[in-house]
Amino acid sequence: MKKQKIVILGAGYGGLMTATKLQKAVGVNEVDIQLVNKHDYHYETTWLHEASAGTLHHDRVRYDIKDVIDRNKVEFIKGTVEQINTAEKKVILQEGELPYDYLVIAVGSEAETFGIKGLKEHAFSIVNVNAARQIREHIEYQFATYNNEKEKKDERLTIVVGGAGFTGIEFLGELANRVPELCREYDIDPHKVKIICVEAAPTVLPGFDPELVNYAVAQLEKKGVTFMIGTAVKEATENGIIVGKGEDEVEEIKAGTVVWAAGVRGNSLIEKSGFEAMRGRVKVQPDLRAPGHDDVFIIGDSSLVINEEINRPYPPTAQIAMQQGVTCAKNLVALIRGKEELETFTPDIKGTVCSLGEDDAIGVAFGKKMTGGTASFMKKVIDNRSLYMIGGPSLVLKKGKFNIL
Amino acid sequence: MKKQKIVILGAGYGGLMTATKLQKAVGVNEVDIQLVNKHDYHYETTWLHEASAGTLHHDRVRYDIKDVIDRNKVEFIKGTVEQINTAEKKVILQEGELPYDYLVIAVGSEAETFGIKGLKEHAFSIVNVNAARQIREHIEYQFATYNNEKEKKDERLTIVVGGAGFTGIEFLGELANRVPELCREYDIDPHKVKIICVEAAPTVLPGFDPELVNYAVAQLEKKGVTFMIGTAVKEATENGIIVGKGEDEVEEIKAGTVVWAAGVRGNSLIEKSGFEAMRGRVKVQPDLRAPGHDDVFIIGDSSLVINEEINRPYPPTAQIAMQQGVTCAKNLVALIRGKEELETFTPDIKGTVCSLGEDDAIGVAFGKKMTGGTASFMKKVIDNRSLYMIGGPSLVLKKGKFNIL
Repeated sequence: MKKQKIVILGAGYGGLMTATKLQKAVGVNEVDIQLVNKHDYHYETTWLHEASAGTLHHDRVRYDIKDVIDRNKVEFIKGTVEQINTAEKKVILQEGELPYDYLVIAVGSEAETFGIKGLKEHAFSIVNVNAARQIREHIEYQFATYNNEKEKKDERLTIVVGGAGFTGIEFLGELANRVPELCREYDIDPHKVKIICVEAAPTVLPGFDPELVNYAVAQLEKKGVTFMIGTAVKEATENGIIVGKGEDEVEEIKAGTVVWAAGVRGNSLIEKSGFEAMRGRVKVQPDLRAPGHDDVFIIGDSSLVINEEINRPYPPTAQIAMQQGVTCAKNLVALIRGKEELETFTPDIKGTVCSLGEDDAIGVAFGKKMTGGTASFMKKVIDNRSLYMIGGPSLVLKKGKFNIL
Repeated sequence: MKKQKIVILGAGYGGLMTATKLQKAVGVNEVDIQLVNKHDYHYETTWLHEASAGTLHHDRVRYDIKDVIDRNKVEFIKGTVEQINTAEKKVILQEGELPYDYLVIAVGSEAETFGIKGLKEHAFSIVNVNAARQIREHIEYQFATYNNEKEKKDERLTIVVGGAGFTGIEFLGELANRVPELCREYDIDPHKVKIICVEAAPTVLPGFDPELVNYAVAQLEKKGVTFMIGTAVKEATENGIIVGKGEDEVEEIKAGTVVWAAGVRGNSLIEKSGFEAMRGRVKVQPDLRAPGHDDVFIIGDSSLVINEEINRPYPPTAQIAMQQGVTCAKNLVALIRGKEELETFTPDIKGTVCSLGEDDAIGVAFGKKMTGGTASFMKKVIDNRSLYMIGGPSLVLKKGKFNIL
């Protein structure tokens, strides 16, 4: 009998968890496993806002995939996926084709720009390591340029963050901490710097406890962040953004840097490959397979799981992606061993902590609200736990966060 | 009798040496001394190529003026000089006016672009701390952007240095050392990076011993620098430079960064204030006073002193500026004490060392040719000596270079 072949696309939280769980569960000659990723490293998507602000070096945010996979059982392929041909059971890479018996799609998310004019051209998105370090350097270059121009342009020192959701708020927290350092580095009066958060929704951090939200807003305002809530971005331009003001009016906000953090959608590969999806997210079956595709699992940010309690989708998080990876690996083992019965995926939300910079945070964990040092401590525990679950204690020692209060 | 007033413009090598020597020579109530400078710090102009390449932080290249002046004797004024009115014996600052009895003009040099089109707009010059850190960040931003663009533009990784004189060569040495670090930081294949030196003259480092020049060129080529000698820059554009090729042809070199290091001229303030000058440099009298102005000394890069041996001007160097500062201070003391006889300035060229990066150099000192580690060691001795002469041992300890082989 020919050995079966599992192909895993993406080495993010979901894909890498699937691969590392699988390699523990199967024997060396039981199945062929191929893990495909664009880069030869994994990055902690949930830490990218730190690399983007320049408060954590991007090498602290990534690690070599080879360090966590068992190369006797998993073959790593560095490649970029162009499309999936489910009818012929193969993946088309830029570099060639890969046939599969079972496929795991864990390709993550993309920035959602909602068709707003100019955003793709003029705004940055915190989507990967390449983007993060470009954002860091772009901001730094604006500060470096300021004092070397005869006619000083104060707007160089304005940073607009689009979106007051999770990523937006976490990025603002890091930025607010980074700006004083940049001012020292480039001899700039801190009063000249503006950090503006523009959010179309009527509230910051929708879904969070209002008491925690108030704490977060107050803390960020104290550090110099200005919030423009209920304000829609109409357009991004070379010079900044244009926002709606009142009914028909618009206002221009000049800014040297615009970072769009107002939402993500599933990977466009999903639609390109013919899966039925809502904004690139496929509503998967309880066993995490795509409807109508018994050989294809979709996990992570490109999957959509409904929270029955509130009848709304769970937000795409690292926590859920990793839990899906565990279930996905179990179900793959069941399938290659010829079992019919697959496990149902049930998210187990242990808590959510939103960082407000290295030294502050808000969150709920074990059903308890927390702020400040306690929440910040909990955030680092969560960050270290991601490393532990995929790479064990040695990865925690290498990349973990121990700057604990 | 009213106290006389000395105003010193510029806190570079010449001005700061004059001020520190003066403060040792005069009594607390003997004379009023004002030192005017645009910034409240002095920077080591001869180290700026390191800050520009990013191999030495700009804070290592500068120090507070207040740390080296005796505030009982010298008043520091942070101000920008607009013009000098020699008839009314006053200096016009952006911030107001300063009358003087004796004036020391030590305002340094400016980049000389020889009227080449586009250089002012599209090329950087290594002229001060603000410019240096912008160059560092500009190059870094090009590298940071490269991997985040769908269509990779290799020209982002091309750095053109205009000029193979002292500054050009020293900058190339630092760049060649910096590029491998940038490639690691931004995951870039070093083979994609080009460092091109374009020089109109038929030789690198004119005036240097040919054997040393050959060593320098070979070492820099080994580190990846390409030399285009006898090649004139015709124009700088948004995309790079246009150089002459043969008789009538031109060639475009696309480059993300163009740094112009092909020459300096005296400060344009000199001409604006009515002094007769050649490219902003005044041929001063043997006692360092400007011809026709018994109350005005001009020293440093805006002065011009002829080397009688070869009947050509000495190149503007820190060494000469500091030596002029010593003579200038002595002559000022003589004048305020009513003496007629002033000292004649005679340069004492102890040697010249051109760095090729942190670990290599070429030079002549004490009449001996040297290369490699020996020359590099000598370079650091020279750099530390500048600090010592102005700020004594404590400044050497604070800012000195001790990374000695």
